[in-house]
Amino acid sequence: MIKGHENFELYNPVRVVYKKGGLENSREISGFSNVLVICDPYVSQSEYFKRAMSKYDSFFVFDKILPNPPCEMVDDIISITCDYTSGKFNFDGVIGIGGGSTLDTAKAVSSLIVSRGKLSEYLEGKKKLENRLPLMLVPTTSGTGSEVTNVGVYTVNGIKKPMTSKTFWADIALVDPVLTYSMPHRVAGTTGLDALTHAIESYWATSTQPYTEGLALRAMKMIFENFKPSLNGEEWARDEMAIAATIAGIAFSQTRTTAAHAISFPITSFYNVEHGLACALTLPSLIMWTYKHVKEKMDELIQYLSLKNIDELAKKVEELIEFAGFSTRLRDYGVKEEELENIAKVSMEARIIDLTPGQPRYEDVLEILNQIY
Amino acid sequence: MIKGHENFELYNPVRVVYKKGGLENSREISGFSNVLVICDPYVSQSEYFKRAMSKYDSFFVFDKILPNPPCEMVDDIISITCDYTSGKFNFDGVIGIGGGSTLDTAKAVSSLIVSRGKLSEYLEGKKKLENRLPLMLVPTTSGTGSEVTNVGVYTVNGIKKPMTSKTFWADIALVDPVLTYSMPHRVAGTTGLDALTHAIESYWATSTQPYTEGLALRAMKMIFENFKPSLNGEEWARDEMAIAATIAGIAFSQTRTTAAHAISFPITSFYNVEHGLACALTLPSLIMWTYKHVKEKMDELIQYLSLKNIDELAKKVEELIEFAGFSTRLRDYGVKEEELENIAKVSMEARIIDLTPGQPRYEDVLEILNQIY
Repeated sequence: MIKGHENFELYNPVRVVYKKGGLENSREISGFSNVLVICDPYVSQSEYFKRAMSKYDSFFVFDKILPNPPCEMVDDIISITCDYTSGKFNFDGVIGIGGGSTLDTAKAVSSLIVSRGKLSEYLEGKKKLENRLPLMLVPTTSGTGSEVTNVGVYTVNGIKKPMTSKTFWADIALVDPVLTYSMPHRVAGTTGLDALTHAIESYWATSTQPYTEGLALRAMKMIFENFKPSLNGEEWARDEMAIAATIAGIAFSQTRTTAAHAISFPITSFYNVEHGLACALTLPSLIMWTYKHVKEKMDELIQYLSLKNIDELAKKVEELIEFAGFSTRLRDYGVKEEELENIAKVSMEARIIDLTPGQPRYEDVLEILNQIY
Repeated sequence: MIKGHENFELYNPVRVVYKKGGLENSREISGFSNVLVICDPYVSQSEYFKRAMSKYDSFFVFDKILPNPPCEMVDDIISITCDYTSGKFNFDGVIGIGGGSTLDTAKAVSSLIVSRGKLSEYLEGKKKLENRLPLMLVPTTSGTGSEVTNVGVYTVNGIKKPMTSKTFWADIALVDPVLTYSMPHRVAGTTGLDALTHAIESYWATSTQPYTEGLALRAMKMIFENFKPSLNGEEWARDEMAIAATIAGIAFSQTRTTAAHAISFPITSFYNVEHGLACALTLPSLIMWTYKHVKEKMDELIQYLSLKNIDELAKKVEELIEFAGFSTRLRDYGVKEEELENIAKVSMEARIIDLTPGQPRYEDVLEILNQIY
């Protein structure tokens, strides 16, 4: 029995619409007429997208999204699309369709159109976003959960910075799994591992509580059941992964993430390892390390997942990484053994590491990195 | 593996604040200054309430709440507290503190103050509520979940009618378990059984989906672990029951309920059996009846709850009813055997019965009633 929950808050005002083929009904779902669409280039070229857009009175498409969206790109989108001298903008809604970078860009654009100024001013805390245009986010991968969080990550002067805002909660998260059917194997793998990490970290975070525990439990079961068939291209499994990733997103929108994400940041920055994969690499070791601090709760999870013990859970994660075609060893990503200390050092700079049960210190992180070297 | 989820929507914009002793900080939590407070009479007499209210600039208390709130009572509260001729009302927020009837009254009052007119006009669908004053709901029992739903139940011409409205989603659900410490044994029992029924019905409803399944799973485990110590007056168990009831409320705010609630309506109306108890009476039989239609999902639940089989789940519910001091047999509530047919007939009138897995017909309901006669 898990006793004595601390005080907590829950808040997630996003309306989630899960609808197979929903993009084609998106005008009806959103109620928008004249839209600014931020999307990935492969989305804008698809017939599916064109059919959906033909139902709007007017639409303007920006599809030159850069990964890790730079503040300047957001500012440029505003200056391209809005004529402030006329005192009007022509849109009654913003739609983001894509992966995490695209959805984060749509969050910032919909806010800046109304709040004006430069994104960097808000990112640096000089100003506060108060309003935005109506916003619908449509994920094309099943991983980031950005469609249901109030966080965006932007690059300023070459450095990635996270930002939260009340205006970043979308009005609608339209989860249309049809958009994920074309995900390449590798993308399905890395984003699926991202969703898995969100679920596990939200479940064990010191900031967790029963609401997020329930969501994380359910999402984890779905991910373990559907990850492999999803990578094999089974559409029914991609449907389930789309739901699971969104639910894991709702869970971590309340708890934030923990050490696996903290350690992933330098691994991604220094060795260009995809985000979800970089997160999952440390999970097997972290599962074993945190176990002593959250034994009872992890035992409940293990039982729900029909696993024998914690080792089996750690092995199952390794198995998924390998099934997706990746090595579980840091050495295979160009990491030199003498660089582990620096990775550990940089990991400790992410404050979310303190949300990890047992609060690992530098030495603990180094030990975890050595184990997976 | 539960496959092939149907299209679904999720939406619950209520900010839940779980805080032990939160009522004393409620001005800070709500941001309200001049409040209209709707509460139960035993609340308004407590020192705890008086201390909390002393922090507001001004407050007006209405504590003459009738159970199954009549429309006229809601209209009367408006006419007592609002002077429309001056074009102003003096409140910047409405606070409801109490059980389901009180919270439902606060939902209607906060809406009618702004929307004007008579509640019956809205209940009958002649008008639609569009706006309300800021609203905070503070439950004093752990059962109804009203603090996190968009439903209110009101009596018009002697008949109870449910009503949903977008204005019935509160801004804040302040869950302060300290308010539940004084619940008498019987109230803790009946309201705890209500929460249990919400969790089970939301879990198996044909309208369920992974989000609500996860919440229902977690809430059920908490209720099974804490029901008995809560009835024994253990404060830590009442804390957990308060959380569990709210989470079960969020779950059924999305799915609605099923046959146990449908059958409870005539049992409560005709024999004056408390709502939560009336709901729980049919649960053991319903658990067995629905099992064949949701076997896989119920097996996952059984495993998570560390139970051996479905019979053990049904027995556990019976055990809780008896532990709360109640009979599990309809005959002990003044029901005559020849009245079962009418109970079944009236139960079939509630449309939620169609959300029950297997969609029981009149004959099935009659069989269930006979089993617990």
